[in-house]
Amino acid sequence: MKVNKSDIANMNRVKRLKLINSVTGIKPANLIATRNNKGETNVAIFSSVIHLGSNPPLLGFIMRPTDDVPRNTFNNIKETGLYTINHVHPDFIERAHYTSAKFPSEVSEFDICNLTEKYIHPYKVPFVKESNFKMALELKETIEITINNTILVIGEIIYLEVPDEAFANDDINLEASKTVGISGLNSYYELRYLNSFPYARVDEVPNFKG
Amino acid sequence: MKVNKSDIANMNRVKRLKLINSVTGIKPANLIATRNNKGETNVAIFSSVIHLGSNPPLLGFIMRPTDDVPRNTFNNIKETGLYTINHVHPDFIERAHYTSAKFPSEVSEFDICNLTEKYIHPYKVPFVKESNFKMALELKETIEITINNTILVIGEIIYLEVPDEAFANDDINLEASKTVGISGLNSYYELRYLNSFPYARVDEVPNFKG
Repeated sequence: MKVNKSDIANMNRVKRLKLINSVTGIKPANLIATRNNKGETNVAIFSSVIHLGSNPPLLGFIMRPTDDVPRNTFNNIKETGLYTINHVHPDFIERAHYTSAKFPSEVSEFDICNLTEKYIHPYKVPFVKESNFKMALELKETIEITINNTILVIGEIIYLEVPDEAFANDDINLEASKTVGISGLNSYYELRYLNSFPYARVDEVPNFKG
Repeated sequence: MKVNKSDIANMNRVKRLKLINSVTGIKPANLIATRNNKGETNVAIFSSVIHLGSNPPLLGFIMRPTDDVPRNTFNNIKETGLYTINHVHPDFIERAHYTSAKFPSEVSEFDICNLTEKYIHPYKVPFVKESNFKMALELKETIEITINNTILVIGEIIYLEVPDEAFANDDINLEASKTVGISGLNSYYELRYLNSFPYARVDEVPNFKG
């Protein structure tokens, strides 16, 4: 299929939504969990978590426009400054997926989707117990992307837990951690390790031209 | 492994770099190609391409700080307003990886890494011929992320080519397109389709509580 700018603009809305959500390639599958000052918890799946820097350790994710969905996740983060990011594994992809339904703020997706809140001292925010790869973040900044009314939420990692079986020689193996990826809005993939290559230095590039 | 904020801060620089670059989970593997007004071409691998919106169809990616690497990609994009994003497949992951070496601007990674420039009328920017899933973008906006001196580059998709075997019922199958993912700085994964679930409506959520 080959489409240009006007083909995309004239496409049926749902077709365009599904198509354009898939074109970046594989996206990470993460559950973001929060807890507001009333003690109400929230957990929702996000495919937009992105690495921004290692020192300080910063991750970002994209919030959709306000009028689109109730933004319990964002409201709770602004209120407490804390959230957790938890990898999704094959045995709970369906439960993770349904956290995307637009429940009111007093309903916890932990309850509805049968996921388990786990608290790790001293962080006053729930982790997802079913996830073996989880981290807590402190909100650092929000940046409005005015062109389409989205928000880049930036946080610093203040706690990180990686399964031992996925960590060897300072490298993380996402097949060993059973981490999954997302395509588009609703398709889930598992990962099969192919290969690793050294840090690419100009004078160490293989001769590819034969 | 469990680490907190001060453990991360005190970590060896390379260990932290490898670890923190892996924690988001799987990242998309894309080659971004450009051509400046002198006709010099550039292609480089990026793992930070992110979906921002479908209407208009907007993607973002993150540029590292200026002092970190020569930013030929970014300079060319600012000069011409055009770039292409091309998925990476297993048969050229090594060639794609080595585009990350810091070559001077007059050297084309297409040449060094034995990748092939392909031009599609009327776009004056090279696609990567080896990629079956490719798109052209028009620069819309750059947003400085001052907290760590990175830049979010935002573009609109003006051309998109998806392999027919990967497109059915308005859904894209990234296993069929042989799209790969990246973990950290240098590990490549192929994708195995697991399952898809419907758009999640509150009144159609399965009963997960048994």
